Amino acid sequence: MGAFAIGVDLGGTNLRIAAVDDQGKTLESVDELSEIGHGREAVVARLTDAVRFLSRKYSHSHNLMGVGVGLPGIIDLEAGTLHSAANLPGWSGYAAREDLENKLGATVVLENDANCAALGEKWLGAGRSTDDLCMITLGTGVGGGFVVHGKPWHGVMGMAGELGHMTVVSEGTACGCGNHGCLEQYASATAINRMAKAAADEGRSVCLAKARAQDPGLSAQSVHVCALTGDAAAIEIFNVAGAALGIALANLINAFNLPMYIIGGGVAKAWDQFSPAMFRELHERSIVFRAGEQEKRSHRATEVRPALLQDRAGLLGAARLPMIVCGTKCQHSLAG
Amino acid sequence: MGAFAIGVDLGGTNLRIAAVDDQGKTLESVDELSEIGHGREAVVARLTDAVRFLSRKYSHSHNLMGVGVGLPGIIDLEAGTLHSAANLPGWSGYAAREDLENKLGATVVLENDANCAALGEKWLGAGRSTDDLCMITLGTGVGGGFVVHGKPWHGVMGMAGELGHMTVVSEGTACGCGNHGCLEQYASATAINRMAKAAADEGRSVCLAKARAQDPGLSAQSVHVCALTGDAAAIEIFNVAGAALGIALANLINAFNLPMYIIGGGVAKAWDQFSPAMFRELHERSIVFRAGEQEKRSHRATEVRPALLQDRAGLLGAARLPMIVCGTKCQHSLAG
Repeated sequence: MGAFAIGVDLGGTNLRIAAVDDQGKTLESVDELSEIGHGREAVVARLTDAVRFLSRKYSHSHNLMGVGVGLPGIIDLEAGTLHSAANLPGWSGYAAREDLENKLGATVVLENDANCAALGEKWLGAGRSTDDLCMITLGTGVGGGFVVHGKPWHGVMGMAGELGHMTVVSEGTACGCGNHGCLEQYASATAINRMAKAAADEGRSVCLAKARAQDPGLSAQSVHVCALTGDAAAIEIFNVAGAALGIALANLINAFNLPMYIIGGGVAKAWDQFSPAMFRELHERSIVFRAGEQEKRSHRATEVRPALLQDRAGLLGAARLPMIVCGTKCQHSLAG
Repeated sequence: MGAFAIGVDLGGTNLRIAAVDDQGKTLESVDELSEIGHGREAVVARLTDAVRFLSRKYSHSHNLMGVGVGLPGIIDLEAGTLHSAANLPGWSGYAAREDLENKLGATVVLENDANCAALGEKWLGAGRSTDDLCMITLGTGVGGGFVVHGKPWHGVMGMAGELGHMTVVSEGTACGCGNHGCLEQYASATAINRMAKAAADEGRSVCLAKARAQDPGLSAQSVHVCALTGDAAAIEIFNVAGAALGIALANLINAFNLPMYIIGGGVAKAWDQFSPAMFRELHERSIVFRAGEQEKRSHRATEVRPALLQDRAGLLGAARLPMIVCGTKCQHSLAG
């Protein structure tokens, strides 16, 4: 009899739930909208319904190892509570582990979404070959997660991975966090959008001005399309994003020399556009990365790669949580 | 019968060797000049003589757990060789572990000097309360070491801890490593010396000009004395160093949220001068550090502290190596 776990990836927009076996095969997944506006109780009810549905269906053929839940916020892992979550209004202080364990009768393991994504890529994505990695997610903001010795790294307050707020330009653009020159101000979808709007407003790009007419939000994807057609302003925006990423990566690599750094999130789809500037800066700024370039044959270099699992990384990482945290110790069948 | 280990701290200037018991008590230490100029064989002969002397003397009353050796360079830990060492000319490629084990008949554990210092502070210094810490050493250069889960963290190529080459000013002063704006260009003794000479040359400081007449090298200590007397240029130099440290620490804390960061090395004696600017920058730039300031009562904040062991940290950390790497498994008596 095989074993499986259920992963839950709750974001501000999407609620994804999947039954995944211990070999990494997704048995079945349920994708819904989070509908956070309906209130926490309603979201939790739909979430637990879906978990029970998958659990009952696959418990005939597999042992359930537990339920892993990825949440977009700062988690107090000892207490099992959601300390704060900007995109889940009304959820701060929610005793998620106790409530879900009571409702499900199964072991529940909580983790923040960025660490789930890092763990997913480590298990089934770009980081399969290594036990230690860092993942940077370029989305609306810039998030980060670490896997150390095969497990999520939390830091003393559960706040490790605030990579979007690393300083890359010491006297740079002001950031909502109170700092200025944060990575997030140059390499997030929001930053790309801000730079693209400025280029359109200032008449520096016909392509971006046209794109804005059709896509008033000027998504990173629209900017990417302009860059692909050779638009100089759009190309420069990705150069800025890539250079900022290169500075942050150079600092991380000089400090921790992990074997792998993975770039994910929506903006990472423009890898072809930003990665040349990123690698240029990295090569210039990181003595450790350069040493690795010379050692590539010995497979001991630090590598920087695009993510592979796209928007499934967090879900698969969440499913992995019960497997690594408690292994076979916390097999349970769900309460009726 | 108690247990002990022998630590060796070989630097470009000093060779320190000590017998240390497993409770951290130094039984006896031998301090010599390295006299690197006499060639590797001569240095190794003196080193092994001193280790044998201490070993014989204390093996009557204690079990020897092994010999830990701190070396100032990049170590290939698998091969047990010194990959490269800028301050030990002629030592690159030296198969230190095999050679020393053959000569001593005891288990030898190698480690780079920055990690030894971090481990020493973790064992007996400022980091006793935690299993995870980062140490930044402000000397001629700026070095760094990490202890993770109680053990030195090496990174995939053994090059973790190059904290002196983290970018703190994106378009700053050029550094010998190829980057510009490295921490080392603002917070090392060399940088303080450079800034002090410039202030003296440009007539911006009577105190520094006078100090230079007596101490042509204008050591960080002389600059510190000027700052203590209220000299504005000297005070500003430590503000620059502190702000640079604050940026680097903010990045490290945002990334890893370790419980403790320790500042050591000769320049750290001027803690009173540079730490206010360091904490100011840290508070402004690190969302994680600020969250910790609010949580201080729960003992879960990230702390930044001065080192306690001064120039004994590396030696004590070296002695600790055999204890944590092999525990009681590698007890040996030395060959005759």
